Amino acid sequence: MKLEHGTPMDIEGESMRIIQAELEARGIVLPPDRAAVVKRVIHTTADFDYAEHLRFTPGAVEAGVAALKAGTPIVTDTNMARAGVSAAACGRLGAERLCCMADPEIARRARERGTTRAAAAVDLWADLHPEAVFAVGNAPTALLRMAELMEAGRLRPALVIGVPVGFVNVVESKERIWSLCRARDIPAIVAMGRKGGSTVAAAICNALLYQAAGMR
Amino acid sequence: MKLEHGTPMDIEGESMRIIQAELEARGIVLPPDRAAVVKRVIHTTADFDYAEHLRFTPGAVEAGVAALKAGTPIVTDTNMARAGVSAAACGRLGAERLCCMADPEIARRARERGTTRAAAAVDLWADLHPEAVFAVGNAPTALLRMAELMEAGRLRPALVIGVPVGFVNVVESKERIWSLCRARDIPAIVAMGRKGGSTVAAAICNALLYQAAGMR
Repeated sequence: MKLEHGTPMDIEGESMRIIQAELEARGIVLPPDRAAVVKRVIHTTADFDYAEHLRFTPGAVEAGVAALKAGTPIVTDTNMARAGVSAAACGRLGAERLCCMADPEIARRARERGTTRAAAAVDLWADLHPEAVFAVGNAPTALLRMAELMEAGRLRPALVIGVPVGFVNVVESKERIWSLCRARDIPAIVAMGRKGGSTVAAAICNALLYQAAGMR
Repeated sequence: MKLEHGTPMDIEGESMRIIQAELEARGIVLPPDRAAVVKRVIHTTADFDYAEHLRFTPGAVEAGVAALKAGTPIVTDTNMARAGVSAAACGRLGAERLCCMADPEIARRARERGTTRAAAAVDLWADLHPEAVFAVGNAPTALLRMAELMEAGRLRPALVIGVPVGFVNVVESKERIWSLCRARDIPAIVAMGRKGGSTVAAAICNALLYQAAGMR
């Protein structure tokens, strides 16, 4: 059995070299501003489909990095995604990691309004942090509610990370948010198609955070 | 835009029907005891590769469900996986969700021993809960340390969930733990190859927990 020995950072560097080599073997050349995000998502999933499915509005990476440098909070739609966002990088930048999905008050509001907890959570964050970085890895209803609030002028994210995973409403929710962000010049990174998830959402946040904090 | 409306449970049921239909279209027939686990992993990743890559030792699902019914704790190698394991199901069963990766004492032990935090964490759990359900979604070094302790008779998991993701040591660590579990008759569910991750680890735990708690 062949095993590499080294620190976690050595292993990560070796992984990134393998990913780069396999991208080249597939004839894929990533735009320089997007390469770190795409490669970190592949590192997190071992799935090269993301090299084709991740879409970026022009300047999305730059906008996300600038927002995080300024300490903009990151709102996630699952506690799992929140747990995957680098606490060390957020600490350096003074950026909070926010999620309220487990809050009983959100469950109460969702019942009251006949909506999902994810949508009720978006309403809360639109009041508290309408210009946050919003990272959605799970709930298409969060993206759809964000689109409504963006159209109503109640939400203007510094960056939308739209990567829910699944089989029902997911593709449609990503197409909707992508069109809207394009039309309104709101920075967005979206994984078109069915794939995504909390680990993907966290990986995109981390790629931006590491650049913002000068950690990689 | 076509959108399904309904409760999260309706949406999950519809997702599972789509997954079943696409499995049939691919000519894949899942053994009944394993179907719930495989389908929940596909539900979590939108990646049908798992229908081929997930391997189960004979009786692994039954052993995992029985252990969780008895309130056996679940140890994870990331806080992200821990956050993804159903708190509601664990609450019903009295099963704890355990992870110590963020504990400064683990970082100290890892430095002292020249190992990874994940391996140092396995040492701790081998002392505290050697018969836990161990779910590894990230760190191949956790699986490799588990193999060493299992060979030394210091660890006898109720179930090994071996699904780390990545490009360096990952495939080898999964082959090692798979062979060892087969040889020693230790229940195991392993995602062969590079793919896996914290969401996959949590999804497997949840499929077993829902069966154990009668929640689906």
